[in-house]
Amino acid sequence: MTRGRFITLEGGEGAGKTTQAVRLAAALETRGLSVLRTREPGGAPGAEVLRGILLDGGIDWSPRAETLLHFAARAEHVARTVQPALEAGTWVVCDRFYDSTMAYQGFGQGADRAFIAAQIGLLGFAPDLTLVLDVPDAVAAERTRRRGLAPDRYERENAGFHARVRDGFRRIAAAEPRRCVLVNAAGDIEIVHAAIMRAVSERL
Amino acid sequence: MTRGRFITLEGGEGAGKTTQAVRLAAALETRGLSVLRTREPGGAPGAEVLRGILLDGGIDWSPRAETLLHFAARAEHVARTVQPALEAGTWVVCDRFYDSTMAYQGFGQGADRAFIAAQIGLLGFAPDLTLVLDVPDAVAAERTRRRGLAPDRYERENAGFHARVRDGFRRIAAAEPRRCVLVNAAGDIEIVHAAIMRAVSERL
Repeated sequence: MTRGRFITLEGGEGAGKTTQAVRLAAALETRGLSVLRTREPGGAPGAEVLRGILLDGGIDWSPRAETLLHFAARAEHVARTVQPALEAGTWVVCDRFYDSTMAYQGFGQGADRAFIAAQIGLLGFAPDLTLVLDVPDAVAAERTRRRGLAPDRYERENAGFHARVRDGFRRIAAAEPRRCVLVNAAGDIEIVHAAIMRAVSERL
Repeated sequence: MTRGRFITLEGGEGAGKTTQAVRLAAALETRGLSVLRTREPGGAPGAEVLRGILLDGGIDWSPRAETLLHFAARAEHVARTVQPALEAGTWVVCDRFYDSTMAYQGFGQGADRAFIAAQIGLLGFAPDLTLVLDVPDAVAAERTRRRGLAPDRYERENAGFHARVRDGFRRIAAAEPRRCVLVNAAGDIEIVHAAIMRAVSERL
């Protein structure tokens, strides 16, 4: 049994991650691969409990507690969902992973980036490929507006926050070129999908 | 303003930590000190939410997720409760701290002790004095029985587990003699209290 591959999609609000994750999973399935689509925070029963606690905004967590809660949810997701799927030969397409913690808490909210990096190191588990979907702030804001859902606590942050998050994702992609591909995600769904499939074919 | 001191009480079920924490806090107050008594997991609103999740046993957490949840609750407790009190000159007496994570998850349940030690290092915050209350297993079991409360998920573990936890606490105390004092807690409340007050007077 060949181990599956772990592909993460990253990017700010309105970058099109969920849409592209669905398209990517479908394209991999048409190649005969077994594919699991999942997302963070969440992706396992315990992790979904923590997702609710993190996103409902009822508690103003101290920065380190918030980072640790994300990594607790991630540990559960990896142990219960991602690793078993990969070992069974399934490819896993995941909407957000640890780069989102670094971009949102670290770059966006100013939490201790060295502490987040230490937690990433202790996790001891990295994606085989990370697609960082990048769109100009104005495009992202327009897409988020059109979605029309009640915003969660990260979506409610101001424009300066979202600009810092985008910059953070770009810096992460630049710092880890072997794992990450920066994808221009401002265009139509089909154009972005084609760029993603090129990256997957070249890297995996 | 002199910074307060941070004293933790550690030990297995039935060691008498809560009783002795009450006596210690009262004794410090009669010396004119401002004292805050707190406990883990919990001790801050967000940390109490996590305590409920950890102790109710509804989710069988993977070992690393459980460790990270304890450290998330701890980060919140330290940031919101312990550090502000110490900075205001208050002494803090805490029922359980990170040694309990090492003893229960690490020694008791076999979770990765190097991972727990790394989290302790990243916390960057240690007690000024840790009193490790040590009682023979039979005494601890009898005290727990007499308490007559519904046991939480750690209390429900078997005798082998509790013996490993006790051994873990003894090893922690032996490895860190500058921070920890092993207290024979098998005797009467007054005798144990006197031993604790001697340790506090000698060390702080």
